[in-house]
Amino acid sequence: MIIVLKPGTTDEDVEDVSRRIREMGYRPHVSRGEARTIIGAVGDDRGKERLQALASLECVESVVRILQPFKLASREVHPEDTRIEVDGVIIGGRRIVVMAGPCSVESREQLLAVAQAAKAAGAAFLRGGAFKPRTSPYSFQGLEEEGLRLLAEARKATGLPVVTEVMEPDKVEVVAEHADIIQIGARNVQNFSLLKRVAECGKPVLLKRGMATTTQEWLLSAEYILSGGNPHVILCERGIRTFETSTRYTLDLNAVPVVKKLSHLPVLVDPSHGTGHWEYVAPMARAGLAAGADGLIIEVHNKPEEALSDGPQSLKPERFRRLMEDLRLLARALGREL
Amino acid sequence: MIIVLKPGTTDEDVEDVSRRIREMGYRPHVSRGEARTIIGAVGDDRGKERLQALASLECVESVVRILQPFKLASREVHPEDTRIEVDGVIIGGRRIVVMAGPCSVESREQLLAVAQAAKAAGAAFLRGGAFKPRTSPYSFQGLEEEGLRLLAEARKATGLPVVTEVMEPDKVEVVAEHADIIQIGARNVQNFSLLKRVAECGKPVLLKRGMATTTQEWLLSAEYILSGGNPHVILCERGIRTFETSTRYTLDLNAVPVVKKLSHLPVLVDPSHGTGHWEYVAPMARAGLAAGADGLIIEVHNKPEEALSDGPQSLKPERFRRLMEDLRLLARALGREL
Amino acid sequence: MIIVLKPGTTDEDVEDVSRRIREMGYRPHVSRGEARTIIGAVGDDRGKERLQALASLECVESVVRILQPFKLASREVHPEDTRIEVDGVIIGGRRIVVMAGPCSVESREQLLAVAQAAKAAGAAFLRGGAFKPRTSPYSFQGLEEEGLRLLAEARKATGLPVVTEVMEPDKVEVVAEHADIIQIGARNVQNFSLLKRVAECGKPVLLKRGMATTTQEWLLSAEYILSGGNPHVILCERGIRTFETSTRYTLDLNAVPVVKKLSHLPVLVDPSHGTGHWEYVAPMARAGLAAGADGLIIEVHNKPEEALSDGPQSLKPERFRRLMEDLRLLARALGREL
Amino acid sequence: MIIVLKPGTTDEDVEDVSRRIREMGYRPHVSRGEARTIIGAVGDDRGKERLQALASLECVESVVRILQPFKLASREVHPEDTRIEVDGVIIGGRRIVVMAGPCSVESREQLLAVAQAAKAAGAAFLRGGAFKPRTSPYSFQGLEEEGLRLLAEARKATGLPVVTEVMEPDKVEVVAEHADIIQIGARNVQNFSLLKRVAECGKPVLLKRGMATTTQEWLLSAEYILSGGNPHVILCERGIRTFETSTRYTLDLNAVPVVKKLSHLPVLVDPSHGTGHWEYVAPMARAGLAAGADGLIIEVHNKPEEALSDGPQSLKPERFRRLMEDLRLLARALGREL
Repeated sequence: MIIVLKPGTTDEDVEDVSRRIREMGYRPHVSRGEARTIIGAVGDDRGKERLQALASLECVESVVRILQPFKLASREVHPEDTRIEVDGVIIGGRRIVVMAGPCSVESREQLLAVAQAAKAAGAAFLRGGAFKPRTSPYSFQGLEEEGLRLLAEARKATGLPVVTEVMEPDKVEVVAEHADIIQIGARNVQNFSLLKRVAECGKPVLLKRGMATTTQEWLLSAEYILSGGNPHVILCERGIRTFETSTRYTLDLNAVPVVKKLSHLPVLVDPSHGTGHWEYVAPMARAGLAAGADGLIIEVHNKPEEALSDGPQSLKPERFRRLMEDLRLLARALGREL
Repeated sequence: MIIVLKPGTTDEDVEDVSRRIREMGYRPHVSRGEARTIIGAVGDDRGKERLQALASLECVESVVRILQPFKLASREVHPEDTRIEVDGVIIGGRRIVVMAGPCSVESREQLLAVAQAAKAAGAAFLRGGAFKPRTSPYSFQGLEEEGLRLLAEARKATGLPVVTEVMEPDKVEVVAEHADIIQIGARNVQNFSLLKRVAECGKPVLLKRGMATTTQEWLLSAEYILSGGNPHVILCERGIRTFETSTRYTLDLNAVPVVKKLSHLPVLVDPSHGTGHWEYVAPMARAGLAAGADGLIIEVHNKPEEALSDGPQSLKPERFRRLMEDLRLLARALGREL
Repeated sequence: MIIVLKPGTTDEDVEDVSRRIREMGYRPHVSRGEARTIIGAVGDDRGKERLQALASLECVESVVRILQPFKLASREVHPEDTRIEVDGVIIGGRRIVVMAGPCSVESREQLLAVAQAAKAAGAAFLRGGAFKPRTSPYSFQGLEEEGLRLLAEARKATGLPVVTEVMEPDKVEVVAEHADIIQIGARNVQNFSLLKRVAECGKPVLLKRGMATTTQEWLLSAEYILSGGNPHVILCERGIRTFETSTRYTLDLNAVPVVKKLSHLPVLVDPSHGTGHWEYVAPMARAGLAAGADGLIIEVHNKPEEALSDGPQSLKPERFRRLMEDLRLLARALGREL
Repeated sequence: MIIVLKPGTTDEDVEDVSRRIREMGYRPHVSRGEARTIIGAVGDDRGKERLQALASLECVESVVRILQPFKLASREVHPEDTRIEVDGVIIGGRRIVVMAGPCSVESREQLLAVAQAAKAAGAAFLRGGAFKPRTSPYSFQGLEEEGLRLLAEARKATGLPVVTEVMEPDKVEVVAEHADIIQIGARNVQNFSLLKRVAECGKPVLLKRGMATTTQEWLLSAEYILSGGNPHVILCERGIRTFETSTRYTLDLNAVPVVKKLSHLPVLVDPSHGTGHWEYVAPMARAGLAAGADGLIIEVHNKPEEALSDGPQSLKPERFRRLMEDLRLLARALGREL
């Protein structure tokens, strides 16, 4: 952290700020420029947020962060890529991993039909929501525990490991029983009680970026899970909120190389939620791979026009199959495999 | 909802879409223009989200919403302003209500000192966080239950009713025991499990707008609480995420008249989180009142430069006192009181 | 500027970066922390942008700005408030200045009717567009020179000085002939050729903030005019682009205290463009004053439902008159006058 | 357009609105639902913006657009892809077109060195700025006419046609003399005077998206050029403003499939400005191709650490050469060529 003092600062001010820095456990390093005196605070970074409080002193102009605030999530501390093995499939390796399935688990018939189609097209995981975060209380809220049982059945039928969302701390245990990967949705990326609980459970966690979450905040949410003792974190970009309304969100593929530079964690891309329109899913899935993603999570539904959630952004099985063929060619051109 | 068909749509398409609309429980109303055929879906609004799925049909160009999706929160259904009485204080009436206190409860001394100052200056409520949602796992996480006990003690000492945040469903009961108003923070505005639980508990709820939440989504989150049986919802604008970085968030005062038009619920403004800098708190507090807010929630700390959270945006007691004097004059000019 | 070096930087790297800093005309000041070595660049600030190029060196992690990049616009260089006198009216003084009139000049009858109403209600300036920046080429593009003549006529009839927009360098002269204040619209805030030309003409300039312009960039646009020799710059906040769609733009009133802190220039607020709906104009006009604005610019139209541009956000004369009465009371409570 | 009336609307209101619709040249089509009466306005779309004024009537709740407001730019009117031939190179065809060169023309040596490198690596066009829109008046403003002459010399030396920016109407002629494609920069996307002038000049125009421009507004800016008689418009996505600060802008690749669906015009991607960091240029260039772009525009500089503008985002020639090799493989996997 660098504390920038206002012009006209006295020696007493400099001494006062330096003393406060020392009291917080850091060493001050004073540097006098022509226009400003600045004081660096040297020491262990993890608690440096506290230094922000100095901004409320009259003589302080601003407090500027120099280092990234996360540690365990950072590539600086952990230079090699993290690979997470789930049921024999490695996420974060050379092979691209595709997770596919319906937005919501709606019925036994629906789920099995889509799961078989996903499997046949080459998906490595089955996705499907049993607990659903819905913007309106009048929308379908998910089959809940019954949905988890159907997912387990579909896994048995297809051999595909399952990723599904958990929305509250108390349900982490039951979801962890049925799922191979636990998903934290975009709206819960800063639900810190939930992050602490999934850290304890130890299962791999798919952590979606929130719609207003900076990459720095997102990695700090990952840090909650990592520092809670669970190293199996998979990041997933799914679109941010911007002024543009021709897509449902703005899928921010820039986040892929940014996070790859800052962190060692694997990164997936969700072009279904990111765009909100099935017609844009294929080009943005391709673009996600080309940006360097380790995998994709794609919504597939056998009857999107009757879906209880996210119909407009779901691919029909045949379209998904053709997309997978395109992605296979593309992966090879990028030096990877699918 | 209006379903807009693509150019070149056949009579079969129109009939197919109409049939689907009927199957979902609505009546189709077809209207043929020069460039497009559109079909209105007439009927009960609450489940209309399902019609969005029709956007995945090949012949459909877009599905356009005409009505607001919330009911109980809407002024159309409930034209008069809602007033919520807490311990003799009415929120949403002619009198402006100011809630003040530290971001975090840090210690007995700190809390009592700030509470006395808030009371002396004319605050109607004491705010203070016991459970703290912190971006970094290395930041102070709050005193938790101990913080709740200190808040109860401060209420006893000052007579000020207390507003404090709850972060997870399992803590709703214990927070409701100690608090007069339960706060849902910006990061939990779409934590639907939590919304359902505070609906059940029946206590007044202060529902902050999320940093990427549209006013429509915010009112749908209120609808979760209202439709869950708890009519005591107070809205609070606290800043949204935009490209501008000279303030921590962008306090969106436009939301005050917008929500006042759409809804009957009382609206507060939080200029402390909204701006993130104590120097901007006073002008934006004044502006909040002038925009039509029913009250303010303001962070006050006796030693902001040592605060464990949000020091830069906290007012010292003396500054808060002077601000309250200004606000009193202003309230009168606006035909209200403080 | 502070140049932050990557971990593992060698002495040669430090020397190389220092040499480059010297070659650009600054003095390097090296500071070695535990995690990072940083190098401050000391010297004249105005050209410091060039130092950004050092970010492309392999050993450099980031280049961090410490000082604001504008000089003549800054309060640091020019501590007292700037007051601009136009035809006997002072902008930036104790008295609040209201500019009112139609979005577009449409006809002699329309303009004179609105100008008389604006005058009667207490407006100090007449606004009206002759050259119109319209999103669609099929929309009304303004009466152009004929519009300027009508404005001059309305000034003669009412005694109100005139503010009107210029869109291209070649028209600055003719607009300056007819207008008392030249407006640079939001879409031209970074039309640097135009800024240079209005700097030369010497007339007072109303510089609207762009819809994606940070306060820093906005003040740099003001700096173009100031450094070009024209000290008469009036800033005007008119709404930024955010994800929220219930208002046309998001009027960012935070910008008022932010710019008042950073700069000595007067600041107006435009609640008409900022919200896009006449129902929100009055509350946001009040809020603008309370936030500390020196004045307002408000669209008034005698028949908004037939307006050729911006009908939905225009006030009818009677509503404007009542708003002015409210504002008069409010100004007094704020220690100002109207 | 659909005019939605408020609940409780009378027959007189419906008749009044219908009459006004007829007076503006459209046919009203009334449709009475349970909750709302809506009136469609049928007729020529180009002037429909005027109907927005009806939103200011007391009985009108909202005016909702159903059709896209552009015509000549739309795929509906012009279904086949537009191909633009410049000096034997086709933009918008099967072959991917890469434009490369320095941000600013700085000197003869610099420009020729970069141009040769760009040519050798397979670029099809040379880019370089002679007139530079710079945020600060204290930054290098470009070599202007001298820069144009150097570009012409580089074209002669390498055979690469030239793309360069024009910033004001009066310079269109001289830029058109020296350039093969005229660039309209992001800050001028709604500089309508400039758009009208480049429409007249007839040369191919590279129209960058503004940093706060929706895809709809961008296509309306293209419509200015097309309706002004110049059909040679090439679109270029270059990043929008969002809350995320780890990249300079947020390159919005979603815009590629969105614009490809709505319009027949070719689309390029600028990963240099879009990200602002050379390390992110290669992955986002790849992603741009995979999203369906017809080409890329990339900043290359022989000494980025000494560049007078945009050094941090410029590739060195060797890195550009390697990127071109990757892109060649990728293009083939996408069924295209480079």
